[in-house]
Amino acid sequence: MISTPQKSIASIRWLNAPTSWSWVEQANARPMEVLIDHAHCERKAAGSAVQMMFRYLCEPGLGEVLSPLAREELDHFEQVLALIKARGRYLEPLPSPGYGAELAKHIRKVEPLRMLDSFLVAGLIEARSHERMALLAEHSSDPDLRELYGGLLLSEARHFGLYWTLAESRWPREVVTQRLAELAIYESQALQGQLGAPNDVRMHSVGIQFET
Amino acid sequence: MISTPQKSIASIRWLNAPTSWSWVEQANARPMEVLIDHAHCERKAAGSAVQMMFRYLCEPGLGEVLSPLAREELDHFEQVLALIKARGRYLEPLPSPGYGAELAKHIRKVEPLRMLDSFLVAGLIEARSHERMALLAEHSSDPDLRELYGGLLLSEARHFGLYWTLAESRWPREVVTQRLAELAIYESQALQGQLGAPNDVRMHSVGIQFET
Repeated sequence: MISTPQKSIASIRWLNAPTSWSWVEQANARPMEVLIDHAHCERKAAGSAVQMMFRYLCEPGLGEVLSPLAREELDHFEQVLALIKARGRYLEPLPSPGYGAELAKHIRKVEPLRMLDSFLVAGLIEARSHERMALLAEHSSDPDLRELYGGLLLSEARHFGLYWTLAESRWPREVVTQRLAELAIYESQALQGQLGAPNDVRMHSVGIQFET
Repeated sequence: MISTPQKSIASIRWLNAPTSWSWVEQANARPMEVLIDHAHCERKAAGSAVQMMFRYLCEPGLGEVLSPLAREELDHFEQVLALIKARGRYLEPLPSPGYGAELAKHIRKVEPLRMLDSFLVAGLIEARSHERMALLAEHSSDPDLRELYGGLLLSEARHFGLYWTLAESRWPREVVTQRLAELAIYESQALQGQLGAPNDVRMHSVGIQFET
């Protein structure tokens, strides 16, 4: 018997809305699609950390956090790519559901607000990834995938913590929590992006029915 | 007695022109400037590898080479940053001598030539870094710096080999060697970029007298 995903979902307290069970079912129905999308997500997460290092290159305390984080994302990318290759596939271009682009619209343009929002958006993406990997680690029908996601998900939770700490060490806690709550609403909306076909599934797509 | 750098220089057979002894003297005179510039170089090398992963994201055999390479560059960045901080400094913005920008001008715009040139330019930068780190590992007057550069330089040589292999596995050997020889000429010219002051020194600046 498959248990409900509520326990894993409750641990992701910053997310505005939990992932629907229908997303878990969709992901289980198309595991290779999720895996290839996941490889792209790890690559993009590394690129995003490196991009922030470049943008704020002399900001004290930033490079020494973002550089190891980017290395870990790249290591995850390599792990996921190895499994994709072991199953006879490779990275393929997958149309994006627009989640990242939608979230990026809510990053304010003026510094230092841009930095704060960049940290929090990156943290929310990590939190959502953590939530979904926890669901797949528990509920995937494939033991290799349960092991893979189980091995990766703790890092994702730690990465949220790193971005949170980067924000909290630079802004008052109430400023950070208020902005995080606002962005968390946009994050749950951003999951409802456009996919090419109803059965398409991504790490950051909505399930067919989105529970709010 | 300080030996001449000829032995180390000779090992970098792809470079069109060896680094002058005057560069070594300049670098020894301003070690912190070179160290901070070196941290930026490692960061930029990681960014360049990640950028190529993004540009050619579904190219077979690329991500599994460039991702570990980017991780290693980031690890080097962290090592250099730790030494900078141990000496009471931090990353500081340093005006660039224009070396990378000058080299980038010679990357042809049309694919697949752009990919070939991107690999070879990245490889030449690694080769020059290897040459200069070997010089500093041997001739720096600071034992900590000799140890740091000695520990890093073998990776730089290996990185040149990785870019070479990426090129040679996709193009005929004579195409690769001919283009590499052309770009190596541009590389030695690119070292002669503009610095703000005559005593400024960078990992990829020319010495006051450039030996050709």
